[in-house]
Amino acid sequence: MNESRVPLQGAYTMSAIREMVGSWRLTHQTVALVPTMGNLHTGHLSLMEDASSRADRVVCSIFINPAQFAPEEDFSLYPRTLAEDEALLAEQGIVDLVFAPEERDVYPFGVENMVGVTMPELSSQLCGASRPGHFDGVASVVLRLINIVSPDILILGEKDYQQFVLLERMIKDLQLSIQVESTPIQREKDGLAMSTRNQYLTADERRIAPKLHAELERVRNSLREGDQDYQAVEARASLALETAGFDPDYVEVRRAADLGRPNGMGSCEGLIVVAAAWLGRARLIDNVRV
Amino acid sequence: MNESRVPLQGAYTMSAIREMVGSWRLTHQTVALVPTMGNLHTGHLSLMEDASSRADRVVCSIFINPAQFAPEEDFSLYPRTLAEDEALLAEQGIVDLVFAPEERDVYPFGVENMVGVTMPELSSQLCGASRPGHFDGVASVVLRLINIVSPDILILGEKDYQQFVLLERMIKDLQLSIQVESTPIQREKDGLAMSTRNQYLTADERRIAPKLHAELERVRNSLREGDQDYQAVEARASLALETAGFDPDYVEVRRAADLGRPNGMGSCEGLIVVAAAWLGRARLIDNVRV
Repeated sequence: MNESRVPLQGAYTMSAIREMVGSWRLTHQTVALVPTMGNLHTGHLSLMEDASSRADRVVCSIFINPAQFAPEEDFSLYPRTLAEDEALLAEQGIVDLVFAPEERDVYPFGVENMVGVTMPELSSQLCGASRPGHFDGVASVVLRLINIVSPDILILGEKDYQQFVLLERMIKDLQLSIQVESTPIQREKDGLAMSTRNQYLTADERRIAPKLHAELERVRNSLREGDQDYQAVEARASLALETAGFDPDYVEVRRAADLGRPNGMGSCEGLIVVAAAWLGRARLIDNVRV
Repeated sequence: MNESRVPLQGAYTMSAIREMVGSWRLTHQTVALVPTMGNLHTGHLSLMEDASSRADRVVCSIFINPAQFAPEEDFSLYPRTLAEDEALLAEQGIVDLVFAPEERDVYPFGVENMVGVTMPELSSQLCGASRPGHFDGVASVVLRLINIVSPDILILGEKDYQQFVLLERMIKDLQLSIQVESTPIQREKDGLAMSTRNQYLTADERRIAPKLHAELERVRNSLREGDQDYQAVEARASLALETAGFDPDYVEVRRAADLGRPNGMGSCEGLIVVAAAWLGRARLIDNVRV
């Protein structure tokens, strides 16, 4: 039941951002930060709505973070649509501040020689296995955004589930007194998880894409029916994706709480099925809770 | 001209620490943090006095940080004297809170699999060349202490000059809104820089030890007299230390501002001479501004 917000936009110095958030805090207003890389879609808007329901003030950061892209990845291709993003947020009236810093604001000493954050072992598994250094880069930018904005709550999307688990871990381990909340995946009508990278798909690929989610649902159903041979389930799903036209990266059954490997004993409660698969030039990720 | 302080001591939960500092902040009192590894000597007390003159409240942390010791270093031997340290601080009346956390408080997920901080290139030069990972470990603990205590000012000693430069860099690069201040080296009457590790020296070594400082003063004088052949100056000093009985690690002329290598053009203003040398089982460090 928030009144419509007119977001403050444009270029701010880091001290202006601090001052603005400081003035909110002086009047005991809580602040939620929603970090994004822009090119906002309905999935992002659900994060803003979630933020809006949890805090008095919502800051949406828009920053395409070079530190989380490997040299061969799509940093230069990643859609840059700041004007449209700002217009959309203004129209929706769900954020108070659009914080779109320049690279030199976020990394004053440059990305090459920055003070970095290294994440624990989980960061080299799953998406981290094929994207070495990715989560260190994510952590390095999110820690800076947190330090600049100093929010009470950080809102993260569950589509990037490993990112959510790792950032929650970073916040606890670095002893930041910030609450972390996650927002469920938003899907297209055919089940495809909303993602900026979906626009890399050709029309043919777009028709195949929902099969990723469908396959994860099949895995979930097998687990619910009592199948505990995770390796076999994973292998079957991977083969099915390949047959459908994907180049699967991984399909894995993990514990939802910490993405650790389940021991295969006991019920399927608290499990999650996570997957990543290439389809054309898009690397799609998805997950389903069991 | 502070009134004498009666320090709060003992075991606190992290949330109790936050609450205490929060209550100071509510009444608009500023807070200085002096991070130490305990075994306090006159050098440390000068840090506390400096802190006391700069902030309304002074927190002294005492924590022997395993992450900054290499496996072969003196972590297990490092003097642990918490009761004496607390008694000294109480007697001196110069701190408001002695914060002596347990390892599990600082590293709730363990040191082995912690979220770490990686420092820029300077961290692998000078002391970092013979202590790989040392400054990453320092940064990893100081970032946590900062996040727990959330001070306005961080007070660091100039004896650990590279540490001071790197932590200042970390604070700027990670966009922490904290002021960093450094306190000059305290020396024994014979010039030896005060250090916990001086107690590792035998009586014979103790007589040799002041020659480190004397040699750095000779280098400073050469530079002041216009010598710009830094390599030759450094080599001469290193040889002199060796002759005196040291096993020199490095003697280098650097820029004081960022410990970068000077280009050898222009005056000696803004330079610093930094050195490390083994003497028996003590690794001594020292520096002198030119």
